[in-house]
Amino acid sequence: MQKTDHVSDFARITPTARIDRPSHGWRAKCLQRLVRLDLPVPETVALSAPTVRSIAAGHPIDSKAILAHFGETSLISVRPSPENPDWGGPATVLNIGLNADQHAALVLRHGQAAADAIYLRFIQSYSTHVARLDPDMFATTQPSASAIKDALRVYEVEMDEEFPFDPARQLAEVLRSMARAWEGTSARLLRQAKGAPAEAPLGLVVQAMAQGIGQGISGSGVIQFVDPVTGQSQITGRYLGQGQGRDALKAEQALYLTHDPRGPSLQDIAPEIFADLLRYGVACRARLREEMQIEFTIEDGRLAVLDAVKVQRSARAGLRIAVDLAMDGVISQEEAVLRVEPRALTEMLHPQVDARAPRDVVARGIAASPGAAVGRIVFSSAAAQASAARGEPCILVRRETAPEDIRGMHSAAAVLTERGGMTSHAAVIARGLGLPCVVGADIRLDPKEKRIHAQGRSFGVGDLITVDGTTGQVLAGAADMLPPALDEHFQTLLGWADQFRDIGVRANADTPTDAAMARTFKAQGIGLCRTEHMFFEEDRLVVMREMIFADSSQERAAALTRLLPMQRADFVQLFEIMAGLPVCIRLFDPPLHEFLPHSREGLRELAEALDKPLSDVTRRAEALAEFNPMLGMRGVRLGVVLPEIYAMQAQAIFEATVEVARRGAAVVPEIMIPLVSARREVELVKTHIDAVAASVRIKEGTDFDYKLGVMVETPRAALRAGEIAQHAAFLSFGTNDLTQMTYGLSRDDAGRFMNTYVQQGVFPEDPFHILDVDGVGELLLIGAERGRQTRQDLTLSICGEHGGNPESIAFCRKAGFDYVSCSPYRVPLARLAAAHLALQDPILH
Amino acid sequence: MQKTDHVSDFARITPTARIDRPSHGWRAKCLQRLVRLDLPVPETVALSAPTVRSIAAGHPIDSKAILAHFGETSLISVRPSPENPDWGGPATVLNIGLNADQHAALVLRHGQAAADAIYLRFIQSYSTHVARLDPDMFATTQPSASAIKDALRVYEVEMDEEFPFDPARQLAEVLRSMARAWEGTSARLLRQAKGAPAEAPLGLVVQAMAQGIGQGISGSGVIQFVDPVTGQSQITGRYLGQGQGRDALKAEQALYLTHDPRGPSLQDIAPEIFADLLRYGVACRARLREEMQIEFTIEDGRLAVLDAVKVQRSARAGLRIAVDLAMDGVISQEEAVLRVEPRALTEMLHPQVDARAPRDVVARGIAASPGAAVGRIVFSSAAAQASAARGEPCILVRRETAPEDIRGMHSAAAVLTERGGMTSHAAVIARGLGLPCVVGADIRLDPKEKRIHAQGRSFGVGDLITVDGTTGQVLAGAADMLPPALDEHFQTLLGWADQFRDIGVRANADTPTDAAMARTFKAQGIGLCRTEHMFFEEDRLVVMREMIFADSSQERAAALTRLLPMQRADFVQLFEIMAGLPVCIRLFDPPLHEFLPHSREGLRELAEALDKPLSDVTRRAEALAEFNPMLGMRGVRLGVVLPEIYAMQAQAIFEATVEVARRGAAVVPEIMIPLVSARREVELVKTHIDAVAASVRIKEGTDFDYKLGVMVETPRAALRAGEIAQHAAFLSFGTNDLTQMTYGLSRDDAGRFMNTYVQQGVFPEDPFHILDVDGVGELLLIGAERGRQTRQDLTLSICGEHGGNPESIAFCRKAGFDYVSCSPYRVPLARLAAAHLALQDPILH
Repeated sequence: MQKTDHVSDFARITPTARIDRPSHGWRAKCLQRLVRLDLPVPETVALSAPTVRSIAAGHPIDSKAILAHFGETSLISVRPSPENPDWGGPATVLNIGLNADQHAALVLRHGQAAADAIYLRFIQSYSTHVARLDPDMFATTQPSASAIKDALRVYEVEMDEEFPFDPARQLAEVLRSMARAWEGTSARLLRQAKGAPAEAPLGLVVQAMAQGIGQGISGSGVIQFVDPVTGQSQITGRYLGQGQGRDALKAEQALYLTHDPRGPSLQDIAPEIFADLLRYGVACRARLREEMQIEFTIEDGRLAVLDAVKVQRSARAGLRIAVDLAMDGVISQEEAVLRVEPRALTEMLHPQVDARAPRDVVARGIAASPGAAVGRIVFSSAAAQASAARGEPCILVRRETAPEDIRGMHSAAAVLTERGGMTSHAAVIARGLGLPCVVGADIRLDPKEKRIHAQGRSFGVGDLITVDGTTGQVLAGAADMLPPALDEHFQTLLGWADQFRDIGVRANADTPTDAAMARTFKAQGIGLCRTEHMFFEEDRLVVMREMIFADSSQERAAALTRLLPMQRADFVQLFEIMAGLPVCIRLFDPPLHEFLPHSREGLRELAEALDKPLSDVTRRAEALAEFNPMLGMRGVRLGVVLPEIYAMQAQAIFEATVEVARRGAAVVPEIMIPLVSARREVELVKTHIDAVAASVRIKEGTDFDYKLGVMVETPRAALRAGEIAQHAAFLSFGTNDLTQMTYGLSRDDAGRFMNTYVQQGVFPEDPFHILDVDGVGELLLIGAERGRQTRQDLTLSICGEHGGNPESIAFCRKAGFDYVSCSPYRVPLARLAAAHLALQDPILH
Repeated sequence: MQKTDHVSDFARITPTARIDRPSHGWRAKCLQRLVRLDLPVPETVALSAPTVRSIAAGHPIDSKAILAHFGETSLISVRPSPENPDWGGPATVLNIGLNADQHAALVLRHGQAAADAIYLRFIQSYSTHVARLDPDMFATTQPSASAIKDALRVYEVEMDEEFPFDPARQLAEVLRSMARAWEGTSARLLRQAKGAPAEAPLGLVVQAMAQGIGQGISGSGVIQFVDPVTGQSQITGRYLGQGQGRDALKAEQALYLTHDPRGPSLQDIAPEIFADLLRYGVACRARLREEMQIEFTIEDGRLAVLDAVKVQRSARAGLRIAVDLAMDGVISQEEAVLRVEPRALTEMLHPQVDARAPRDVVARGIAASPGAAVGRIVFSSAAAQASAARGEPCILVRRETAPEDIRGMHSAAAVLTERGGMTSHAAVIARGLGLPCVVGADIRLDPKEKRIHAQGRSFGVGDLITVDGTTGQVLAGAADMLPPALDEHFQTLLGWADQFRDIGVRANADTPTDAAMARTFKAQGIGLCRTEHMFFEEDRLVVMREMIFADSSQERAAALTRLLPMQRADFVQLFEIMAGLPVCIRLFDPPLHEFLPHSREGLRELAEALDKPLSDVTRRAEALAEFNPMLGMRGVRLGVVLPEIYAMQAQAIFEATVEVARRGAAVVPEIMIPLVSARREVELVKTHIDAVAASVRIKEGTDFDYKLGVMVETPRAALRAGEIAQHAAFLSFGTNDLTQMTYGLSRDDAGRFMNTYVQQGVFPEDPFHILDVDGVGELLLIGAERGRQTRQDLTLSICGEHGGNPESIAFCRKAGFDYVSCSPYRVPLARLAAAHLALQDPILH
C-alpha cells in the first residue's frame, strides 16, 4: 500500500493546536474554542481540507493511525467541517468501529436492546451514506438480532461482499465517501446557491463517541438561549434520554429542558447538569461572541459537549441578537451593525406569511414588492377604493396597472397582475408604496367574467386570497401572518448605523403618507417627490383635462389657476411633515395623454364633461398619442413648450414655502427639472422659475431660498453635465430612465426577454434591478466629474429604483455622491448598507 | 465745416491703385480688373469701407474733392460695393450733378425729350432714395418741363427746402444716404439671411456717367455668354437704344443681342461693337476665371463697360460652368470641385417644379424629401400599387405611413402625409427611395370620405396634384416640371471629386432598385442593407406571420425554411448588382408586431388564414404589443431569444455568396448585428453565425469569407465598444437610433415640439437632421477610440440619416472613420462634400 504524507495528516484538537478555519473548517475551529473554554469536549482530531481533497482524489488513507489515536475499542464519529456552517456538507456518521465484537461489548454495557438499536442504525447508516444503497431496502423494523442479520444480508447481496467489520476499513470508507460527496455536482450546486465558491474546501472532524446510553442519567440533546424567531432571551431545545445524536430533536419521547407543565424536563431530573449547560451557554456567548446552540451528551451522569453551532435565526432574531450582544458589551456597535445583512431588513418592514403555517399555493409570479397581505379580490381601482372606504382589505387584481390605477393601488392591501416584470408600473409603484405585489403571475384574468383562473381553480370578486410579495406566491384563503418588526432593537441598530455612514439617505416620497413613512424610517429628506400623481385625483383630473384641451394659452392658464391652490396645499402638507429637512420636488413629467381616458366610453364622458363634440375630443386624444411615450413630449419638453405648467407648480411651491415659514417651519425647497438633454432647456426653465420666485417675493413681501437642479435621465445630460451644471445647484441621476436610454430598452417591454437574457448571461443581472456599473455607471461618473468641474459645491445624488441597493450605494459613495434616494421602505436598508460600506472601507472618510 | 482725413479719402481705380476687396468691396476690385484688362471703363473712384462707415457715423464729406476729380460738368453715378455681390446694398443713383444748368447743356446735346427724361428720373430717384420720400407721390407722367416742375415742387413741400442744385451737396447727400441705409436694421437682416456677418463692410464706387444717349449709336445693355439655367455656352442679354442703366433689361423696346428672327439685334446694327463685346467676354472669362455678365453703354458709337458681375446661375448651370472652365484650363479641377456647393447637387437629382411656372399652392408642409412629382391622389398602398400597375403616376396620401405602406410608397410618385416630421417614417423612407415627400402638411385627411381638405378646398381619389418635396408645397393640378440633370458634366465633376477625397462613401440600399441607384451614383458598396422590408412582400408576410404565431421552435423553423429560398434570392440579386463591392447586411431588426395587422378586420382575416380562433390571434397580437416599441423586443434581442431567424438569414447570405461566386462575382458579405448593448449579445450571435457558415461550407463544399460587425445604436454599445470590438470586424454607428437614445427622444414623436425647440434655440438644429456633435458625437468618438484600441484594423463608419451631411462627413473624417453610408440619392452630395473637406483641410491625408 502506497503511503503519502497527506492521508495520515491530522491534528488533535487541543487549546494550542494549529487549527485554522480556512483549512480545518468552522467546526474544527469551534471545537477548539470550546476546548479552550474548558468545556468537556470528547477527544477530537481534525483533518484539513488539503487532506480531504487528497482523499477524494483517491490517495489511500492511513486510517489505522487515526484510530490508534482514540484507542482500539473506542467508537468514533465523523462530521463535516466546511469553512462556513451554512455551506452544508455530507451527513455525519456515528459509531464507526462497530462490529460483532464491539456489539457484544455494548450488550454487556448497555443491554441487548440498546446495543441492537445502535448496531442496526450503524449498519443502515453505513450502507446508505457510505455504500450509497437505497434506504428503502432497509425495513424500519424494531431492532433485533434478526433485523441486524437482514440488514447485513442486504448489504452483502447488493455490494457482493461481506459488510466490512474492520474499523480501519470502515473509517477509511467513511472518510473517502464524505470527501467524494463534497466534490459531487449536486453538493457543489447546493453550496454555491448558499454563496460558497465552487471550489470551497471541506475539513472533517473525527470524534470519540459519547454514547448517551448508560445506567445512570444518560441521553443527548441540544440547548440554546434565545428564541430563533424573535431573538429574545429564552432557553429552548430538546433532550432525549438514552438517545444519540440529533435524533433527540425529532424524537417524540424527548423531554423539555426547563420546567414545563406539559411533562418532565432535564432541569427536573438533572439540575446540576442543567446548571452546567447554562454556565457553558454564558461562556460561549461571552467568549465566542455569538448565541450558540450546544449539542451535548450525558453518559452515566457525565456531560460531554459534542459541538456548538451558531443558533439558526430569522432576520429579526439576528438583528436582536446583534443589538443585545453589543448592549451587553460582548461585541462593538460597529460589529453589531456589520452582523446584520442590509437585505435582511426588508422582511422586517412588512407583515409576512408565517413560515410555519400551511400554504395553499394557487399561482406563482414575480415577487415584485415584499411583504404579504390578505384581502378580498377586486378588479378595478374604483372597487378597491370602495372596499377601502368600507374598511375591508382588498387585493387589486389587474392584467397590468396604468397610472390611472394609482388611487386603487393606494386603497389596496396588495396588488396582483397577470403581466409585467420587476420594473413594470405595478411593481415600481407597489415598491414605492410598500405594498405587497406579485406581477407576471400564472393566472388568466377574464375581465368580462370578472374572474381569475389559476391551476384549474377559479376566483371571483370578494374571494379571499393572500398575496405573498416576498416569495411571489398567491395563496387561496387567509394565510397565518407575522406582523412587521420595527421595534426598539431595529431603531437602535439603525441609530448606530447612522453614526458610521458617510453618505446621505433620502426617500422618494410623493404623498403625505410616503413622507410620514420617510420620517418614520429617518430619511434625511425627500430626494424625489413626483408631482404627477397629484393630478390624478378625481377633482384635479377634470381640471387637468380642461387644461389639456384648452384652445389658447389663456384657457390653459385659467385651468392651471384652478389647480394652483390644490398644488399649494399638497406642498404645504409635505413641507410640514418634512419640516427642517430638504424636499426635492420634480416638476411635472409624464406625457399629457396619460391623463386622458383610453376607452371610447371614457372619451364620450370626457366630451360631455368638456361640452365639446366627441369627434373633437377623439381627434385631440389621438393627436396626443405617441409611438414611444417614454421618448416623447414629456418632462422639460412640456415645460418649454407649455411654460404655464411649470410656472404654476413653481408658484405653488414658493407660496407653500412662505406659508409654512410663517408657521415656523423653515424649508428650502429644491426644484428639479426632469428629462433634460440640453443646457438651454435648464436656462429657459430657470429664467421662468426665477421670475415666478421674484413675483411671489414681492406679492408676499417676504424672502425665501430655493435650489434649482436637474434630473439626469438622458445619456446626453450626463455627457453635457459640465454646461448643465452652470445653471443647476444639484444633479440627481434618475437611473431608471438613464438605464432605459443607455440600453435602448424600455423597462415596460423588457420583461418579455429579460429572464432569457439573464439566464443566458447576456446581462449578468437585470440592469433595472442592479445598476449597470459598466455602462450606466460610466455615465454617472462622467456626469459627476464634469458637473463638479463646473461647480465644486454641486450636490450629487441618485434617485432611481437603484438608490436603495447596496451595490449602487457603494458605487455612489466611491463617486463622491452626497446622497442616495430610494423608496421609503428601502431607507432602513440603505442606511444600514451605507454604514457597512463606511465600516468596511473607511479610507474614503 | 470740420474736416477729417476720412471723408475725402478715395482712390482712383487704375491698374496699379491699392484696391482690395475686403476694404473697397467686390465691385471696386472687379472694376480694377476690368481696367487691367484694358476694357473701356469710365473714370471711377472707390470709397473704402472705413470711409463709408465714417460717413454713416455723421462725419462731414469733402464731396467737392471727389467731384473735382471728374471735372466740373461731368455727371456721375454711385454704386454699392460690398465684399460679396450676394449681400446686396443700397440702390445705385445715376446722374448726380444734374441741375438746371446741366439740364440745359443736356438739351443742347441730346434734345429736349431725352434731357427732360433724364432730369425727371434724377429728381425722382434722389427724392425717393436719398430724401426717402414716398415714390407714389411722383406721378408717372411723360417727361416734360411741367412734370419736372411738379416733381421739384413735391420735394420742396415735403422737405420744406429747395431741391439741392449744388452737385457737391447732391453727392454728399447720396453718399450719406447710401452709407446709412447699409447700417439700417432691414438691410442688415437681409444680408445676414444671405450669410453676411452682421457688421459686413460696404464700399462705394463713384463713376463718370456714360450716357447711352446720343446722335450716333447709343444705348445701354447687358451681355453674358452662358445660359443661366443650363450653363450651356449661349449669348444672352438685352440692349436698349437711347437707354440708361439697368432699365435696358426691363424695357419692352429692348433689342436682342444676336441675330434673331423676332426683330433687330445689336449684332445687326453695330457688328463691330458686338465683336468688341465678345472679345471682352473672352478676356473676362480667361482672366477673371468666371462667367461674367457685362454691363455696357454705347454713346455715339463709343463702347463703355460700366460693370461686370458673376452670371447669376442655377445649381446645374453652376456645375456646368465650373466643369467647362476646368476643361478649358481656366481653373484647376480642384477649384472646379470646390466651386460647386455639395447641397446644390440635390436639386439636380430629381425632377423639379419649373421655377418660372405658375404655382397653385393649396397646402404647405415640411419639405421632407426633395424633388417634385405630379400624380393622381390615392389613399392606400393597395390603390398605389394598382395605379402603378396601370402605369399611372399617383400620389400616396396618408395620415402617416407605417411599415406596411412600404410597397405603396415604392409604387407612388410622391408621398404626402398629414402628420410627422423630418424624421417620421414617411420622410425617412421617402428620402431612402428618392421619392418626393411632404409631411406634416396643413391638410385634413378624412379617411372615411376619402378626401383631403386644405384651405377651403377639397380633393378626392384621382384628383391631380403636384407634391414639391423641395419646397414643401402641395400644388393643385400638374405643374410644369424640369427633368433631373445627371449629365456628363455631373459625372465628370464627381469623378474629379473622387480623386481628391479621402473617406469612403457607401449607400444605404435595401432593394435591387436601391442597389442599382447606388451603382449609378458610384457608391463604393452598400453600407446598410436593411432586410426587414423583404418580409413585407405579400407572399412572405403570410409566412412571416405563421412564424410569429408558431407554437414551437419546430413550427417556427418550418416557416423560416419556407422563407429561406426567398431571402437567398434577394441576396443573390443584390450581390450580382453590387459585384466586386462590399455589401453590409443588417440582420432582422423590427419588433415582430410590425408584421401583424392593426385593424380588427385584418386580425380576423389573419385568424382565418392561420386557421386559429380569432381570440387566440387577438390575444397573441396584444401580447406582442409594446409600450415603447423603439426600446422593446427587436434587433439582437430577437436574435438572441429566437435564434432561428438570424440562422435563416445567415444561411441565405452564405448560400447566395456561394451561388454568386460560382457565377464569377466575388463578394465578401458583411453581416451587421443591430441594437447591441452588451458584448455577450455579439458573442452569442457570432457563435451561431459561425456555425451556420461552417455548415454551409461543408454542404456546398466550398469556402468563402465574411465579416461580422455591430451596428452601434445604443449609448451603451458606444461606451462598451472596447469589449464589443473583440467580436466585431467593424462598427457602424446608426446615428438615428443613437440620437434617439442619447436624447431620450423618439424621432416619430419629436415633430410635435422640434420646431419650437429649434426656434427657441433649445437645440441649435434638429439633431435628427444635423448630427449633434456635442452629445451623440462624443459617443461616436468614445466608441471609435475604444474600438480601435481593441482592434487596430477595426472598420468604422456611420450609416444613419446623417451619413450624407457634409457636417457629419467632416466629423467622421476627423475621427478617422473609413466610410459614411447614406441613401443613394445623397451619395453624390457626400462624394463632393468629402472632396471639399480633403481639399480644404488636406492635413489629414
